[in-house]
Amino acid sequence: MDQDFFERPPFKNASERLRQQIDFILEMDKLKRVLRRSMLLDQSRNENDAEHSWHLAILAMILSEYASPEVDINRVVRMLLIHDIVEIDAGDTFVYDESAVADTKAERENAAANRIFSLLPEDLKEELISLWREFEARSTPDAKFAAGLDRLQPLLLNYFSDGGTWSKHHVPAGKVRAKQRVIAEASQPLWNFVESLISDAVERKILNE
Amino acid sequence: MDQDFFERPPFKNASERLRQQIDFILEMDKLKRVLRRSMLLDQSRNENDAEHSWHLAILAMILSEYASPEVDINRVVRMLLIHDIVEIDAGDTFVYDESAVADTKAERENAAANRIFSLLPEDLKEELISLWREFEARSTPDAKFAAGLDRLQPLLLNYFSDGGTWSKHHVPAGKVRAKQRVIAEASQPLWNFVESLISDAVERKILNE
Repeated sequence: MDQDFFERPPFKNASERLRQQIDFILEMDKLKRVLRRSMLLDQSRNENDAEHSWHLAILAMILSEYASPEVDINRVVRMLLIHDIVEIDAGDTFVYDESAVADTKAERENAAANRIFSLLPEDLKEELISLWREFEARSTPDAKFAAGLDRLQPLLLNYFSDGGTWSKHHVPAGKVRAKQRVIAEASQPLWNFVESLISDAVERKILNE
Repeated sequence: MDQDFFERPPFKNASERLRQQIDFILEMDKLKRVLRRSMLLDQSRNENDAEHSWHLAILAMILSEYASPEVDINRVVRMLLIHDIVEIDAGDTFVYDESAVADTKAERENAAANRIFSLLPEDLKEELISLWREFEARSTPDAKFAAGLDRLQPLLLNYFSDGGTWSKHHVPAGKVRAKQRVIAEASQPLWNFVESLISDAVERKILNE
Protein backbone atom coordinates (compact mmCIF):
# COMPACT_ATOMS: atom_id res chain seq x y z
CA MET A 1 0.00 0.00 0.00
CA ASP A 2 1.07 3.56 -0.75
CA GLN A 3 3.13 4.59 2.27
CA ASP A 4 1.54 8.09 2.24
CA PHE A 5 -1.60 6.70 3.82
CA PHE A 6 0.39 5.44 6.75
CA GLU A 7 1.67 8.96 7.46
CA ARG A 8 -1.87 10.16 8.12
CA PRO A 9 -3.38 10.62 11.63
CA PRO A 10 -5.25 7.28 11.93
CA PHE A 11 -1.94 5.47 11.55
CA LYS A 12 0.24 7.98 13.42
CA ASN A 13 -2.04 7.35 16.38
CA ALA A 14 -2.30 3.58 15.93
CA SER A 15 0.26 1.02 16.98
CA GLU A 16 2.91 -0.16 14.54
CA ARG A 17 1.37 -3.60 15.00
CA LEU A 18 -2.09 -2.50 13.77
CA ARG A 19 -0.46 -0.69 10.85
CA GLN A 20 1.24 -3.94 9.81
CA GLN A 21 -1.98 -5.91 10.18
CA ILE A 22 -3.90 -3.43 8.00
CA ASP A 23 -1.11 -3.43 5.43
CA PHE A 24 -1.33 -7.24 5.15
CA ILE A 25 -5.14 -7.12 4.91
CA LEU A 26 -4.90 -4.63 2.02
CA GLU A 27 -2.25 -6.77 0.30
CA MET A 28 -4.68 -9.69 0.42
CA ASP A 29 -7.04 -7.82 -1.90
CA LYS A 30 -4.66 -8.72 -4.74
CA LEU A 31 -5.52 -12.43 -4.46
CA LYS A 32 -8.90 -11.54 -5.97
CA ARG A 33 -7.03 -10.73 -9.20
CA VAL A 34 -5.00 -13.95 -9.49
CA LEU A 35 -6.82 -16.10 -12.03
CA ARG A 36 -6.84 -19.88 -12.09
CA ARG A 37 -7.28 -22.18 -15.09
CA SER A 38 -10.59 -23.42 -13.68
CA MET A 39 -13.79 -21.73 -14.81
CA LEU A 40 -16.86 -21.10 -12.67
CA LEU A 41 -19.44 -23.86 -12.96
CA ASP A 42 -21.49 -21.80 -15.45
CA GLN A 43 -18.32 -21.28 -17.56
CA SER A 44 -18.83 -17.50 -17.49
CA ARG A 45 -15.25 -16.68 -16.45
CA ASN A 46 -12.09 -17.98 -14.80
CA GLU A 47 -12.13 -18.54 -11.08
CA ASN A 48 -9.82 -16.39 -8.96
CA ASP A 49 -7.70 -17.54 -6.03
CA ALA A 50 -9.67 -15.68 -3.35
CA GLU A 51 -13.02 -17.22 -4.22
CA HIS A 52 -11.36 -20.61 -4.78
CA SER A 53 -9.93 -20.40 -1.24
CA TRP A 54 -13.35 -19.51 0.12
CA HIS A 55 -14.92 -22.45 -1.71
CA LEU A 56 -12.30 -24.83 -0.26
CA ALA A 57 -13.01 -23.61 3.27
CA ILE A 58 -16.69 -24.38 2.66
CA LEU A 59 -15.74 -27.87 1.43
CA ALA A 60 -13.78 -28.39 4.66
CA MET A 61 -16.79 -27.40 6.77
CA ILE A 62 -19.18 -29.65 4.82
CA LEU A 63 -16.96 -32.69 4.30
CA SER A 64 -15.11 -32.81 7.63
CA GLU A 65 -16.70 -36.17 8.55
CA TYR A 66 -14.64 -37.85 5.79
CA ALA A 67 -11.33 -36.82 7.38
CA SER A 68 -9.47 -39.12 9.73
CA PRO A 69 -10.34 -38.54 13.41
CA GLU A 70 -7.08 -36.75 14.29
CA VAL A 71 -7.75 -33.96 11.78
CA ASP A 72 -8.45 -30.54 13.35
CA ILE A 73 -10.88 -29.05 10.86
CA ASN A 74 -10.39 -25.50 12.17
CA ARG A 75 -6.70 -25.74 11.28
CA VAL A 76 -7.64 -27.16 7.88
CA VAL A 77 -9.94 -24.17 7.26
CA ARG A 78 -7.18 -21.71 8.19
CA MET A 79 -4.67 -23.55 6.03
CA LEU A 80 -7.01 -23.44 3.03
CA LEU A 81 -7.74 -19.74 3.54
CA ILE A 82 -4.04 -18.88 3.21
CA HIS A 83 -2.73 -21.70 0.99
CA ASP A 84 -2.69 -19.68 -2.23
CA ILE A 85 -1.58 -16.30 -0.84
CA VAL A 86 1.91 -16.75 -2.32
CA GLU A 87 0.36 -16.68 -5.79
CA ILE A 88 -0.05 -12.91 -5.42
CA ASP A 89 3.62 -12.82 -6.43
CA ALA A 90 4.23 -16.26 -7.88
CA GLY A 91 1.09 -16.61 -10.00
CA ASP A 92 -1.05 -19.70 -10.39
CA THR A 93 0.81 -22.79 -11.67
CA PHE A 94 -1.46 -25.20 -13.55
CA VAL A 95 -1.26 -28.54 -11.76
CA TYR A 96 -0.83 -30.40 -15.09
CA ASP A 97 1.97 -28.09 -16.29
CA GLU A 98 4.75 -30.36 -15.12
CA SER A 99 7.68 -28.33 -16.41
CA ALA A 100 6.57 -25.26 -14.43
CA VAL A 101 5.88 -27.36 -11.36
CA ALA A 102 9.30 -28.98 -11.49
CA ASP A 103 11.32 -25.97 -12.55
CA THR A 104 10.57 -22.92 -10.53
CA LYS A 105 7.38 -23.23 -8.54
CA ALA A 106 8.96 -23.94 -5.13
CA GLU A 107 11.56 -21.19 -5.51
CA ARG A 108 9.06 -18.57 -6.66
CA GLU A 109 6.62 -19.47 -3.93
CA ASN A 110 9.21 -19.38 -1.15
CA ALA A 111 10.32 -15.90 -2.17
CA ALA A 112 6.67 -14.83 -2.27
CA ALA A 113 5.95 -16.29 1.16
CA ASN A 114 8.90 -14.40 2.64
CA ARG A 115 7.81 -11.10 1.19
CA ILE A 116 4.09 -11.37 1.86
CA PHE A 117 4.04 -12.92 5.34
CA SER A 118 6.77 -10.45 6.42
CA LEU A 119 4.20 -7.66 6.13
CA LEU A 120 2.75 -9.05 9.38
CA PRO A 121 3.99 -8.61 12.95
CA GLU A 122 6.60 -11.29 13.73
CA ASP A 123 4.36 -13.65 15.75
CA LEU A 124 1.60 -13.70 13.11
CA LYS A 125 4.20 -14.09 10.38
CA GLU A 126 5.65 -17.16 12.10
CA GLU A 127 2.21 -18.65 12.69
CA LEU A 128 1.00 -18.26 9.12
CA ILE A 129 4.23 -19.15 7.36
CA SER A 130 4.49 -22.38 9.32
CA LEU A 131 0.86 -23.19 8.50
CA TRP A 132 1.62 -22.56 4.82
CA ARG A 133 4.77 -24.71 4.94
CA GLU A 134 2.82 -27.50 6.59
CA PHE A 135 0.29 -27.36 3.75
CA GLU A 136 3.02 -27.41 1.13
CA ALA A 137 4.84 -30.36 2.77
CA ARG A 138 1.62 -32.40 3.06
CA SER A 139 3.20 -34.25 5.95
CA THR A 140 0.50 -33.96 8.63
CA PRO A 141 -3.08 -35.29 8.65
CA ASP A 142 -4.41 -31.69 8.56
CA ALA A 143 -2.28 -30.82 5.53
CA LYS A 144 -3.19 -34.06 3.73
CA PHE A 145 -6.89 -33.39 4.16
CA ALA A 146 -6.48 -29.76 3.04
CA ALA A 147 -4.50 -30.84 -0.04
CA GLY A 148 -7.12 -33.45 -0.90
CA LEU A 149 -9.87 -30.81 -0.90
CA ASP A 150 -7.68 -28.57 -3.05
CA ARG A 151 -7.76 -31.36 -5.69
CA LEU A 152 -11.40 -32.29 -5.21
CA GLN A 153 -12.84 -28.82 -5.82
CA PRO A 154 -11.49 -28.34 -9.40
CA LEU A 155 -12.35 -31.97 -10.16
CA LEU A 156 -15.98 -31.24 -9.26
CA LEU A 157 -15.94 -28.09 -11.41
CA ASN A 158 -14.61 -30.15 -14.34
CA TYR A 159 -16.97 -33.10 -13.90
CA PHE A 160 -20.03 -30.87 -13.66
CA SER A 161 -19.13 -28.66 -16.62
CA ASP A 162 -18.32 -30.97 -19.54
CA GLY A 163 -14.69 -31.49 -18.74
CA GLY A 164 -13.53 -27.91 -18.13
CA THR A 165 -9.74 -27.71 -17.99
CA TRP A 166 -9.36 -31.42 -18.86
CA SER A 167 -10.91 -30.86 -22.27
CA LYS A 168 -9.31 -27.50 -22.90
CA HIS A 169 -5.79 -28.67 -22.06
CA HIS A 170 -6.18 -32.28 -23.35
CA VAL A 171 -5.32 -33.84 -19.99
CA PRO A 172 -5.66 -37.67 -20.16
CA ALA A 173 -7.40 -39.70 -17.44
CA GLY A 174 -4.15 -41.33 -16.33
CA LYS A 175 -2.70 -37.95 -15.39
CA VAL A 176 -5.87 -36.96 -13.60
CA ARG A 177 -5.82 -40.20 -11.59
CA ALA A 178 -2.15 -39.67 -10.69
CA LYS A 179 -2.70 -36.07 -9.52
CA GLN A 180 -5.90 -36.94 -7.71
CA ARG A 181 -4.16 -39.71 -5.71
CA VAL A 182 -3.54 -36.94 -3.16
CA ILE A 183 -7.19 -37.45 -2.20
CA ALA A 184 -6.49 -41.07 -1.28
CA GLU A 185 -4.12 -39.77 1.41
CA ALA A 186 -6.83 -37.39 2.60
CA SER A 187 -9.81 -39.70 2.83
CA GLN A 188 -10.59 -43.21 1.58
CA PRO A 189 -14.35 -42.59 1.17
CA LEU A 190 -13.70 -39.41 -0.83
CA TRP A 191 -11.13 -41.27 -2.94
CA ASN A 192 -13.63 -44.03 -3.75
CA PHE A 193 -16.06 -41.37 -4.89
CA VAL A 194 -13.41 -39.51 -6.91
CA GLU A 195 -12.27 -42.71 -8.70
CA SER A 196 -15.85 -43.28 -9.69
CA LEU A 197 -16.19 -39.68 -10.94
CA ILE A 198 -13.04 -40.05 -13.06
CA SER A 199 -14.23 -43.34 -14.59
CA ASP A 200 -17.60 -41.81 -15.32
CA ALA A 201 -15.95 -38.75 -16.88
CA VAL A 202 -14.21 -41.15 -19.30
CA GLU A 203 -17.54 -42.89 -19.92
CA ARG A 204 -19.17 -39.50 -20.63
CA LYS A 205 -16.29 -38.71 -23.06
CA ILE A 206 -15.38 -35.47 -21.26
CA LEU A 207 -12.03 -37.05 -20.31
CA ASN A 208 -9.85 -39.18 -22.61
CA GLU A 209 -8.58 -42.50 -21.28
CA MET B 1 -27.58 -28.84 -10.13
CA ASP B 2 -29.07 -30.74 -13.08
CA GLN B 3 -30.59 -33.84 -11.55
CA ASP B 4 -29.35 -35.98 -14.48
CA PHE B 5 -25.84 -35.97 -13.04
CA PHE B 6 -27.13 -37.51 -9.85
CA GLU B 7 -28.56 -40.45 -11.82
CA ARG B 8 -25.08 -41.45 -12.97
CA PRO B 9 -22.98 -44.26 -11.38
CA PRO B 10 -20.80 -42.12 -9.04
CA PHE B 11 -23.98 -40.94 -7.29
CA LYS B 12 -25.98 -44.18 -7.60
CA ASN B 13 -23.12 -45.80 -5.67
CA ALA B 14 -22.64 -42.97 -3.17
CA SER B 15 -24.74 -42.30 -0.09
CA GLU B 16 -27.68 -39.92 -0.26
CA ARG B 17 -25.78 -37.89 2.32
CA LEU B 18 -22.73 -37.40 0.08
CA ARG B 19 -25.01 -36.50 -2.84
CA GLN B 20 -26.60 -33.75 -0.73
CA GLN B 21 -23.20 -32.46 0.38
CA ILE B 22 -21.95 -32.27 -3.21
CA ASP B 23 -25.17 -30.58 -4.32
CA PHE B 24 -24.67 -27.87 -1.67
CA ILE B 25 -21.00 -27.43 -2.64
CA LEU B 26 -21.99 -26.90 -6.28
CA GLU B 27 -24.71 -24.44 -5.26
CA MET B 28 -22.05 -22.41 -3.44
CA ASP B 29 -20.34 -21.69 -6.76
CA LYS B 30 -23.13 -19.17 -7.44
CA LEU B 31 -21.91 -16.89 -4.63
CA LYS B 32 -18.96 -16.03 -6.90
CA ARG B 33 -21.47 -14.30 -9.19
CA VAL B 34 -23.23 -12.16 -6.58
CA LEU B 35 -21.74 -8.68 -6.92
CA ARG B 36 -21.41 -6.15 -4.11
CA ARG B 37 -21.33 -2.37 -4.36
CA SER B 38 -17.73 -2.33 -3.15
CA MET B 39 -14.95 -2.31 -5.73
CA LEU B 40 -11.61 -4.06 -5.44
CA LEU B 41 -8.91 -1.82 -4.02
CA ASP B 42 -7.54 -1.13 -7.52
CA GLN B 43 -11.08 -0.13 -8.65
CA SER B 44 -10.90 -2.62 -11.54
CA ARG B 45 -14.27 -4.25 -10.85
CA ASN B 46 -16.94 -4.92 -8.22
CA GLU B 47 -16.15 -7.35 -5.47
CA ASN B 48 -18.21 -10.54 -5.30
CA ASP B 49 -19.64 -12.17 -2.18
CA ALA B 50 -17.36 -15.24 -2.27
CA GLU B 51 -14.11 -13.28 -2.28
CA HIS B 52 -15.57 -10.78 0.23
CA SER B 53 -16.32 -13.71 2.58
CA TRP B 54 -12.78 -15.02 2.14
CA HIS B 55 -11.34 -11.58 2.89
CA LEU B 56 -13.42 -11.35 6.08
CA ALA B 57 -12.18 -14.74 7.26
CA ILE B 58 -8.62 -13.46 6.76
CA LEU B 59 -9.47 -10.33 8.80
CA ALA B 60 -10.74 -12.59 11.60
CA MET B 61 -7.48 -14.57 11.61
CA ILE B 62 -5.32 -11.43 11.62
CA LEU B 63 -7.34 -9.24 14.00
CA SER B 64 -8.50 -11.83 16.55
CA GLU B 65 -6.49 -10.17 19.35
CA TYR B 66 -8.86 -7.18 19.26
CA ALA B 67 -11.90 -9.35 20.10
CA SER B 68 -13.09 -9.77 23.68
CA PRO B 69 -11.58 -12.83 25.40
CA GLU B 70 -14.75 -14.96 25.23
CA VAL B 71 -14.82 -14.84 21.42
CA ASP B 72 -14.15 -18.18 19.70
CA ILE B 73 -12.36 -17.07 16.55
CA ASN B 74 -12.90 -20.41 14.80
CA ARG B 75 -16.66 -19.92 15.10
CA VAL B 76 -16.25 -16.35 13.85
CA VAL B 77 -14.38 -17.64 10.79
CA ARG B 78 -17.12 -20.19 10.03
CA MET B 79 -19.81 -17.57 10.53
CA LEU B 80 -18.11 -15.19 8.11
CA LEU B 81 -17.61 -17.92 5.52
CA ILE B 82 -21.38 -18.56 5.34
CA HIS B 83 -22.83 -15.16 6.33
CA ASP B 84 -23.64 -14.06 2.76
CA ILE B 85 -24.77 -17.40 1.31
CA VAL B 86 -28.41 -16.31 1.37
CA GLU B 87 -27.56 -13.60 -1.17
CA ILE B 88 -27.42 -16.32 -3.85
CA ASP B 89 -31.22 -15.94 -3.89
CA ALA B 90 -31.78 -12.65 -2.09
CA GLY B 91 -29.05 -10.56 -3.78
CA ASP B 92 -26.78 -8.07 -2.08
CA THR B 93 -28.55 -5.25 -0.22
CA PHE B 94 -26.48 -2.07 -0.03
CA VAL B 95 -26.05 -1.24 3.66
CA TYR B 96 -26.92 2.43 3.03
CA ASP B 97 -30.09 1.59 1.05
CA GLU B 98 -32.41 1.93 4.03
CA SER B 99 -35.70 1.34 2.23
CA ALA B 100 -34.52 -2.06 0.96
CA VAL B 101 -33.08 -2.95 4.35
CA ALA B 102 -36.32 -2.10 6.14
CA ASP B 103 -38.76 -3.43 3.58
CA THR B 104 -37.90 -6.86 2.42
CA LYS B 105 -34.37 -7.89 3.32
CA ALA B 106 -35.22 -10.12 6.30
CA GLU B 107 -38.05 -11.86 4.48
CA ARG B 108 -36.04 -12.48 1.32
CA GLU B 109 -33.08 -13.72 3.28
CA ASN B 110 -35.11 -16.10 5.45
CA ALA B 111 -36.68 -17.71 2.40
CA ALA B 112 -33.23 -18.01 0.84
CA ALA B 113 -31.75 -19.58 3.98
CA ASN B 114 -34.51 -22.16 4.04
CA ARG B 115 -34.00 -23.16 0.44
CA ILE B 116 -30.23 -23.16 0.37
CA PHE B 117 -29.38 -24.75 3.72
CA SER B 118 -32.05 -27.41 3.06
CA LEU B 119 -29.85 -28.80 0.31
CA LEU B 120 -27.69 -30.21 3.13
CA PRO B 121 -28.29 -33.29 5.28
CA GLU B 122 -30.48 -32.35 8.28
CA ASP B 123 -27.70 -32.12 10.92
CA LEU B 124 -25.49 -29.87 8.78
CA LYS B 125 -28.51 -27.78 7.80
CA GLU B 126 -29.34 -27.20 11.48
CA GLU B 127 -25.74 -26.37 12.34
CA LEU B 128 -25.26 -23.84 9.56
CA ILE B 129 -28.66 -22.21 9.72
CA SER B 130 -28.27 -21.58 13.44
CA LEU B 131 -24.81 -20.12 12.85
CA TRP B 132 -26.28 -17.85 10.19
CA ARG B 133 -29.17 -16.80 12.48
CA GLU B 134 -26.70 -16.04 15.26
CA PHE B 135 -24.77 -13.79 12.88
CA GLU B 136 -27.94 -12.00 11.77
CA ALA B 137 -29.14 -11.48 15.37
CA ARG B 138 -25.76 -10.08 16.50
CA SER B 139 -26.61 -11.20 20.00
CA THR B 140 -23.49 -13.17 20.95
CA PRO B 141 -19.87 -12.01 21.29
CA ASP B 142 -18.90 -14.17 18.29
CA ALA B 143 -21.63 -12.65 16.11
CA LYS B 144 -20.79 -9.11 17.25
CA PHE B 145 -17.15 -9.54 16.31
CA ALA B 146 -18.07 -11.11 12.95
CA ALA B 147 -20.50 -8.26 12.19
CA GLY B 148 -17.86 -5.68 13.11
CA LEU B 149 -15.41 -7.17 10.62
CA ASP B 150 -18.14 -7.21 7.98
CA ARG B 151 -18.33 -3.41 8.39
CA LEU B 152 -14.59 -2.83 8.71
CA GLN B 153 -13.60 -4.51 5.44
CA PRO B 154 -15.63 -2.26 3.09
CA LEU B 155 -14.62 0.76 5.18
CA LEU B 156 -10.97 -0.08 4.51
CA LEU B 157 -11.68 -0.54 0.79
CA ASN B 158 -13.35 2.91 0.74
CA TYR B 159 -10.71 4.71 2.80
CA PHE B 160 -7.85 3.34 0.69
CA SER B 161 -9.49 4.04 -2.67
CA ASP B 162 -10.62 7.66 -2.63
CA GLY B 163 -13.98 7.07 -1.04
CA GLY B 164 -15.30 4.19 -3.16
CA THR B 165 -19.00 3.61 -2.50
CA TRP B 166 -19.22 6.67 -0.18
CA SER B 167 -18.40 9.01 -3.04
CA LYS B 168 -20.36 7.13 -5.68
CA HIS B 169 -23.56 6.98 -3.62
CA HIS B 170 -23.12 10.34 -1.78
CA VAL B 171 -23.19 8.77 1.67
CA PRO B 172 -22.56 11.41 4.39
CA ALA B 173 -20.17 10.85 7.31
CA GLY B 174 -23.01 10.79 9.85
CA LYS B 175 -24.54 7.75 8.17
CA VAL B 176 -21.17 6.04 7.96
CA ARG B 177 -20.56 6.64 11.68
CA ALA B 178 -24.02 5.28 12.54
CA LYS B 179 -23.58 2.11 10.48
CA GLN B 180 -20.03 1.60 11.67
CA ARG B 181 -21.13 1.76 15.35
CA VAL B 182 -21.49 -2.03 14.99
CA ILE B 183 -17.71 -2.09 15.29
CA ALA B 184 -17.90 -0.47 18.74
CA GLU B 185 -19.81 -3.56 19.91
CA ALA B 186 -17.16 -5.77 18.35
CA SER B 187 -13.99 -4.17 19.68
CA GLN B 188 -13.16 -0.87 21.40
CA PRO B 189 -9.61 -0.63 19.95
CA LEU B 190 -10.90 -1.26 16.41
CA TRP B 191 -13.65 1.32 16.97
CA ASN B 192 -11.12 3.94 18.06
CA PHE B 193 -9.19 3.26 14.88
CA VAL B 194 -12.33 3.35 12.70
CA GLU B 195 -13.50 6.66 14.19
CA SER B 196 -10.13 8.10 13.31
CA LEU B 197 -10.35 6.72 9.76
CA ILE B 198 -13.80 8.27 9.28
CA SER B 199 -12.64 11.68 10.55
CA ASP B 200 -9.60 11.51 8.32
CA ALA B 201 -11.78 10.54 5.33
CA VAL B 202 -13.72 13.78 5.93
CA GLU B 203 -10.42 15.65 6.23
CA ARG B 204 -9.26 14.11 2.94
CA LYS B 205 -12.59 15.18 1.33
CA ILE B 206 -13.43 11.64 0.21
CA LEU B 207 -16.40 11.66 2.62
CA ASN B 208 -18.78 14.59 3.21
CA GLU B 209 -19.51 15.67 6.78
